Amino acid sequence: MFALEEYTRRLEAVKKRMVDEGVDVLLISNPSNMYYLTNYSAWSFYVHQMMVVTLEDAQPLWIGRQMDANGVAKTTWLDEHHIIAYPDFYVQSTERHPIDFVANILTEIGQSRRTIGIEMDVHYFTALCYERLKHGLPNATFKDTSSLVNIIRLIKSQNEITYMKRAGKIVENAMTAAYECVQVGVRESDVAAAIYYAQIKGTKEFGGDYTSIVPMMPTNENTSCPHLTWTDRPYQKGDFLTLEIAGAYKRYHAPMARTMAIGTAPNEVKELAKVVEEGIEATLDFIRPGIRAEEVERVWSKTIGKYGHRKSSRLGYSVGLSFPPDWGEHTVSFRPGDETILKPNMTFHLMPGIWYNDYGVEITETIHITDQGVELLTNFPRDLYEKPVLSVISDEHTS
Amino acid sequence: MFALEEYTRRLEAVKKRMVDEGVDVLLISNPSNMYYLTNYSAWSFYVHQMMVVTLEDAQPLWIGRQMDANGVAKTTWLDEHHIIAYPDFYVQSTERHPIDFVANILTEIGQSRRTIGIEMDVHYFTALCYERLKHGLPNATFKDTSSLVNIIRLIKSQNEITYMKRAGKIVENAMTAAYECVQVGVRESDVAAAIYYAQIKGTKEFGGDYTSIVPMMPTNENTSCPHLTWTDRPYQKGDFLTLEIAGAYKRYHAPMARTMAIGTAPNEVKELAKVVEEGIEATLDFIRPGIRAEEVERVWSKTIGKYGHRKSSRLGYSVGLSFPPDWGEHTVSFRPGDETILKPNMTFHLMPGIWYNDYGVEITETIHITDQGVELLTNFPRDLYEKPVLSVISDEHTS
Repeated sequence: MFALEEYTRRLEAVKKRMVDEGVDVLLISNPSNMYYLTNYSAWSFYVHQMMVVTLEDAQPLWIGRQMDANGVAKTTWLDEHHIIAYPDFYVQSTERHPIDFVANILTEIGQSRRTIGIEMDVHYFTALCYERLKHGLPNATFKDTSSLVNIIRLIKSQNEITYMKRAGKIVENAMTAAYECVQVGVRESDVAAAIYYAQIKGTKEFGGDYTSIVPMMPTNENTSCPHLTWTDRPYQKGDFLTLEIAGAYKRYHAPMARTMAIGTAPNEVKELAKVVEEGIEATLDFIRPGIRAEEVERVWSKTIGKYGHRKSSRLGYSVGLSFPPDWGEHTVSFRPGDETILKPNMTFHLMPGIWYNDYGVEITETIHITDQGVELLTNFPRDLYEKPVLSVISDEHTS
Repeated sequence: MFALEEYTRRLEAVKKRMVDEGVDVLLISNPSNMYYLTNYSAWSFYVHQMMVVTLEDAQPLWIGRQMDANGVAKTTWLDEHHIIAYPDFYVQSTERHPIDFVANILTEIGQSRRTIGIEMDVHYFTALCYERLKHGLPNATFKDTSSLVNIIRLIKSQNEITYMKRAGKIVENAMTAAYECVQVGVRESDVAAAIYYAQIKGTKEFGGDYTSIVPMMPTNENTSCPHLTWTDRPYQKGDFLTLEIAGAYKRYHAPMARTMAIGTAPNEVKELAKVVEEGIEATLDFIRPGIRAEEVERVWSKTIGKYGHRKSSRLGYSVGLSFPPDWGEHTVSFRPGDETILKPNMTFHLMPGIWYNDYGVEITETIHITDQGVELLTNFPRDLYEKPVLSVISDEHTS
């Protein structure tokens, strides 16, 4: 846990935005936002739970499942008066819904007639949650505040940057492990295992955390499908693959993707990799505080456009702390129309993946906007990696 | 992918239930249900996507993000006419919502005035998804079909049981890896890394898949908080921990929990472990097809009640294929009031965890209801494990 003052500062920023948006009560379903405000990180978000911020109260209120209440008490700065548990018979029941319980609590604490901000488009706040909330609080006014806390998360503190740099060290180790492990006869699952081991083991100084997206590592023509994971097929000579992974330290992420081949990569992959590398360099040269997010994409598009290439998907997105299923922060994207001004201590996954019908290339970086420009959170060669093929494969690789 | 006939049979069962429930069109947001019907397993569910089943069509329709369309084409049995992609500017946009696109497609294919089943309480179908759907389809009638497909998933095919047994082998290996790795001076994250490595590496015959919940492994008084994950604190002599993990093979899970100590466990933990073991044995002796889910809990409660213990949370839940954030199927639970009749080829996580304020014990099994009784999907000693403490710790353990 950070020092209490970091959480207090975050909570004050949230309350300020609540006032600006005319919201009296903020309901938080996003586990990333719960963690941001309180350090609560248990894997309890598969059942309904809710954090409640009111303008009056110096602490958020957590409402969740009975068996998770102790975890809140032991790992956050909330006192016992701010931890309210519902009985287990609410869990995945066809008769009762946990949000009925939440609505009752809100009524009991006098919040049933107020303007209540809810995270309308957040995984974990389901359609039924909203229906039950409206049913239980007929006199409340609801307002969509899906990204109210997320926007505050955009600018990182020095502590957060330190955590992301640790995550950067971890992803360097994990990518190195993949490079070392990949070989003819080695299965995709063996490489995935090596990556996971490095991700969680961390370094001698600090251990790793799980990442909010699993390793994505499609091979050959499947590199056109960036979100496929792995199989247990053994690699063959001439295979090529993209590998998008992250390192995580205490829920803070540094994603990174690279493209590699076992032996020699196909010419079109090599050529596209070079174009992507040039695009990254031109983009990094350009990025600095004060420019708009869409301008980053424009520089990229112009650079790769010279070679007849184009990318129809966004060029990147803000990144930081997160919980599954996504490591993006769901705020700023590098794409046309996003006029957000870049500021110091924003962090992004610069994601220049290009996916054609039969092949793709991914070479990405996690970047930190500094006072004057930009720095990388990892230090790892960007070139397409061609793994020398061993002529003799030992038993070790296939066991 | 299974043989096409397995998917056809599943789809027919879904359509039969749709008819029974008076639904013309079924919208599927749950990635587990998408996978069940089509084999689609990419990690693309962090953006909105939808599968559409209509009574008339012999194939489901997939609607999702442009960059994921190739993955659907290459890994499922859907033909190109059943894969529809929305442009990337719909992703996490403040101006457009992917469900607007989905509603337009439903209108174009003549489904806008029908009775449409939606998964109201499924992660990934957010409150805003429902609002946009209602807005886009003002003449449709909506019905909550949150568990329509899930209930069909309750009874497994022989192929599915085979997959779960493979998952069982993997979790045995992962728990063995934890037992071997845990030691004074070894960090929690080191043990987690060993578990992950075994989970993903799998066996010589088959590789492992990621599990839908990460290893949960609280230590000492935190064993009262079952859903905490790990830190990088080194274990000390006398520590005890609960470890709840799973093995996964092609998205099918076999969860298992055990309780262990480094050195000697506290007496109250040892005693509670014995009571839990006796409760498990009595429960397993009782379970057979034809009984009600609530009766399983009753036998358990009576057995542990003799020793003055009680468990307020459910004793287990159906389990099988799943995607994060949960490996439960969200249908049947072993708890009072659940009158589901157990049938052959149902599978459950028998979850007799007991969590008191200062300590907890977890010893669990994944079980398969057979024609006559029950079988375990794993073969692993249930006794509380006391790891002999090494007097000299090598560098290896802390590096």
